[in-house]
Amino acid sequence: MKAVPQSPCKNVCASRVPIFQDLSPQELARFNDILTTNEYASGDIIYHQGSPARMLCIVNTGAVKLFKTSPEGKEQVLRLLRPGDFFGEAVLFSEHARSASAQALEPSKICQLDKYMAEDIIHRNPEIAHKLIAALNLRLLQAEDQIENLGTRATLQRVANLLVELAEEQESAIITLPLSREGLASLTGMTVENFSRKLSELQQQGLVQAQGRKKLALTDLPALKQLT
Amino acid sequence: MKAVPQSPCKNVCASRVPIFQDLSPQELARFNDILTTNEYASGDIIYHQGSPARMLCIVNTGAVKLFKTSPEGKEQVLRLLRPGDFFGEAVLFSEHARSASAQALEPSKICQLDKYMAEDIIHRNPEIAHKLIAALNLRLLQAEDQIENLGTRATLQRVANLLVELAEEQESAIITLPLSREGLASLTGMTVENFSRKLSELQQQGLVQAQGRKKLALTDLPALKQLT
Repeated sequence: MKAVPQSPCKNVCASRVPIFQDLSPQELARFNDILTTNEYASGDIIYHQGSPARMLCIVNTGAVKLFKTSPEGKEQVLRLLRPGDFFGEAVLFSEHARSASAQALEPSKICQLDKYMAEDIIHRNPEIAHKLIAALNLRLLQAEDQIENLGTRATLQRVANLLVELAEEQESAIITLPLSREGLASLTGMTVENFSRKLSELQQQGLVQAQGRKKLALTDLPALKQLT
Repeated sequence: MKAVPQSPCKNVCASRVPIFQDLSPQELARFNDILTTNEYASGDIIYHQGSPARMLCIVNTGAVKLFKTSPEGKEQVLRLLRPGDFFGEAVLFSEHARSASAQALEPSKICQLDKYMAEDIIHRNPEIAHKLIAALNLRLLQAEDQIENLGTRATLQRVANLLVELAEEQESAIITLPLSREGLASLTGMTVENFSRKLSELQQQGLVQAQGRKKLALTDLPALKQLT
């Protein structure tokens, strides 16, 4: 962690986070006073699985991945986070150590909010509690989709599914890969060799075309969707 | 569904649910007045994936499984629920259709609470909102464990993991299987053939012994734990 000395968040982090958007200007100003911002270089670990958890985190700029490491050291990516996304929320109203690690995927600013201060704000703003419940419900639905995907889909389907999701998220048929091959393989629960093999299959079928190292053109999105 | 005509919940469902335990006696009485109870036979579907969602559900007696069905009809078990557990909570503060199906595993009484009434009670009792946030956080951590398990563990490990979890839950080295072989296979993201093969391997290694159709003795729990 190349932590810049902790400084008040001048970047109005909280106002970017959907669950905090209805705060009054006064409450929002107070919020920003108690947020601190740390900067991380690409690859820096923000926190390690198993470490004590005291802060709720918000992505201000950059990108973050959350991942778990199995006892054998195998990595499972859980989620990718972008500006406005919050993470490390298991800290709220409970006493959990970090159940996963968080790593910056590019230079990132992360706003952090002390657990007890976050709980206090939620106490005083029931509307935030309700939005947080809705956000956690949505997150749980997404996790259950990933469970279904890992448990029931063949590996070719999983790769097709990931590419279609990225196209929808980036609103483009030319997608920028947000992770290395290793990371994408981990997100789909596959070895990197198997992941690369399935991607080649999709290229051979004329559904996908590489555009340099970081981009892929999805040349037949309807056919790709049919595979998912 | 063999639905008994909807009747007020005389079984104090709400007081059994950890997140509702701090309600005042008055609030609890009001709660029980607006809960309705349906009875289901073993195998009955409580709701189908894709159906509209208006009710929060609580297991009063019996056992329930939540599962998703893939487009090819393959089943993925998400969770097993027992008395005091709530489910279908994605309905709260959001407008989601059922993202999974719920099925009774044995004769079960299910208390149901209208979404808007539940939201009203949560509005008036911030303490419940906070407990619900903690419960959803815990559920998310469990879902992420399942993702790690499906994504990174070899199939023999997954079977061992499931058996150890059941032993811890039932606080006994002689465990009652809560699902059919098909259901247990689905919970671990395996085919039933592969699941049975891995269970036989554990028997051959002397770690597990069948006791009739529904029970297994875990004869060497430390060795089984080492496998997970």
